[in-house]
Amino acid sequence: MTLTRRALLRTGGAAGLAAATAGAGFVLGRETDAGGGPDHVVAFHGPHQAGIATAAQDRLHFAALDVEPGVTRADLRDLMARWTAASERLTRGLDVGAGASSAALAPPDDTGEAVGLSAANLTVTFGVGPSLFDDRFGLAGRRPAALGPLPALPGDALDRSRSDGDLCVQACADDPQVAFHAVRNLARLGRGVVTVRWSQLGFGRTSSTSTAQATPRNLMGFKDGTANVKAEDARAMDEAVWVGGRPDEPAWLRGGSYLVARRIRMLIEVWDRASLGDQEQTIGRHKRSGAPLGASDEFATLRPASLPPDSHVRLAHPDTNRGARLLRRGYSFTDGLEALGQLDAGLFFLAYMRDPSAFITLQNRLGTSDKLNEYIKHVGSGLWAVLPGVRPGAVLGSALLA
Amino acid sequence: MTLTRRALLRTGGAAGLAAATAGAGFVLGRETDAGGGPDHVVAFHGPHQAGIATAAQDRLHFAALDVEPGVTRADLRDLMARWTAASERLTRGLDVGAGASSAALAPPDDTGEAVGLSAANLTVTFGVGPSLFDDRFGLAGRRPAALGPLPALPGDALDRSRSDGDLCVQACADDPQVAFHAVRNLARLGRGVVTVRWSQLGFGRTSSTSTAQATPRNLMGFKDGTANVKAEDARAMDEAVWVGGRPDEPAWLRGGSYLVARRIRMLIEVWDRASLGDQEQTIGRHKRSGAPLGASDEFATLRPASLPPDSHVRLAHPDTNRGARLLRRGYSFTDGLEALGQLDAGLFFLAYMRDPSAFITLQNRLGTSDKLNEYIKHVGSGLWAVLPGVRPGAVLGSALLA
Repeated sequence: MTLTRRALLRTGGAAGLAAATAGAGFVLGRETDAGGGPDHVVAFHGPHQAGIATAAQDRLHFAALDVEPGVTRADLRDLMARWTAASERLTRGLDVGAGASSAALAPPDDTGEAVGLSAANLTVTFGVGPSLFDDRFGLAGRRPAALGPLPALPGDALDRSRSDGDLCVQACADDPQVAFHAVRNLARLGRGVVTVRWSQLGFGRTSSTSTAQATPRNLMGFKDGTANVKAEDARAMDEAVWVGGRPDEPAWLRGGSYLVARRIRMLIEVWDRASLGDQEQTIGRHKRSGAPLGASDEFATLRPASLPPDSHVRLAHPDTNRGARLLRRGYSFTDGLEALGQLDAGLFFLAYMRDPSAFITLQNRLGTSDKLNEYIKHVGSGLWAVLPGVRPGAVLGSALLA
Repeated sequence: MTLTRRALLRTGGAAGLAAATAGAGFVLGRETDAGGGPDHVVAFHGPHQAGIATAAQDRLHFAALDVEPGVTRADLRDLMARWTAASERLTRGLDVGAGASSAALAPPDDTGEAVGLSAANLTVTFGVGPSLFDDRFGLAGRRPAALGPLPALPGDALDRSRSDGDLCVQACADDPQVAFHAVRNLARLGRGVVTVRWSQLGFGRTSSTSTAQATPRNLMGFKDGTANVKAEDARAMDEAVWVGGRPDEPAWLRGGSYLVARRIRMLIEVWDRASLGDQEQTIGRHKRSGAPLGASDEFATLRPASLPPDSHVRLAHPDTNRGARLLRRGYSFTDGLEALGQLDAGLFFLAYMRDPSAFITLQNRLGTSDKLNEYIKHVGSGLWAVLPGVRPGAVLGSALLA
């Protein structure tokens, strides 16, 4: 392995130099990409956690975790300290550990499958669920009113084993092996403190979160997220996404957000038999162009009143929902076939918002009236408060867990 | 959409020109990548099907299919004709259909989720299983002796619902949505004739099949496939991979191959607790470098006798197995958690070979003695004869199904 500037930067100056010259077997940083392009590193530190306003990466590995019996609040603090340090390293493309355990007698600090891969724009984003605020950790008094379990919503067909969780971690990257590696090693660091309750892989982003990104297509073949909140719109981000300084917003969550996850199964075989006209009337947009029905440009102004009353984009439009907006950041998934031989595939919906009531308002309307309900089922669900970001040296969640 | 040379090429000359100028809504070909790089198209036609000697792409969608009751051999021929035409289009980055059904009253020919994506080096590769040669289609007399069901092998823990199948299709691409789209649309074309029996996604290749590729790492963190048969080694390909003109090799399979698939679950949590020394003794290679134990270069000559007697690479070495070699082309997978909360992840082993006895020899040895068995379980299995390639205008499998 050649010693490059990037390897040096990644392994942190002098320490990195020492490591990189110590022998090819124990270099701390991963190898650089052939040709040396951009670094593919998303900054870990900042007022907000990365992975929300970050331009949506291509792949997802999401995990919901439960705290094990007997764990104390101090144990949780320790875990958050380990997770913060590990996440900062992982997002720089480094191994999870300090690289010390080259000892043959100990298990390796890092499981190794990402060695040689770039950082791949990895972000890891942590949240805390309503159940963490029960009587186990003395946190009941710190629970924001907005962080209750989601109410029953029309059309819910939820599998509880794929719903909820004391904690969550969203790992996004442009390489699935990098996202998998992050979740696996974070879960490993949590052994004895947390166990994975459920997890979900996503293989293609279904939303743009930046004006620099083209709108992707979901598994219905439609462009998805055309009217999404974009990170460049600072005012919309402040109004709709980031928890701020309102009296009902707790200080420990300022700069954080709320995350709603919904595993939305698409009834692919049924959809595939629907005519193009039906599909377009259902969504309210043209399939090829993504333009609102009757228009030809994807970004043409959408006039809800001109669309079919039960069409998805009309019902989901902010004008129909007292201005409610979400930053959607979902992924397509497929998990093979379910028991009846139908494809278990769809949209793993992830949305960030300043107040979960935005989603509740929206889903109450969509669950009741959306023509799309003929073709989808919500089969998993979760709500988490997503912690604010941290400065170098600080620990995620310390204001909550102190 | 701009009319580019690539769009023209893809839509096939004059017809493409007509289509591409007919209006943005109904362009046949997908949009080109921004910046116009290489075409990411793997040739569909040739003496062998693509997807075997093709440099292994990054993502996999594999499906095993069963023929529905009442289907005739002529129906199968028709299906193969539809699949051949569709595959040729898909691998050029085109929609699956002829693009004719822009009619609002009909379901779209193509499901649409790959519109705007490149061809992503897609290959689709078809095989026929032993069960196709029962009494349903009058093919019993054409079954090669080598195409029996795999015998019971030591350590098998097979789930029959994730094993076997009358037919298989392997879709590989550098974009998972392109691979998913291919299998979905091929299954859709087969409606009424075949149903998907099981399917498997793979998210990271675990073998190189070209000397131009770096050796990837599997989920154990080890480099995998260092000593794989490489496509550039024409002699090894002829000896070990392609069915040729031996008297026991049927004419309909000449230029084809045999494919063994094994879903190999890794007991990740157990592996992650093993010491680095144990892991390296188990595999017979160093973890970081991939070099044989005691050496420092990945490609150092491997001397089986110098490695632990129960180490994986010693037992799998051709010298240990009467020269048996395979072209491995497997993928890492993870399908969430299984019932006991353990990670359902591992290696979806795919290997191409001239004679299935190569795999049977190897797995009889490995299943009995390999130290790796402490950490893995074979939970799915299948064997298929992989059809020869076709010339333009010809139909896959026509020599078999005539």
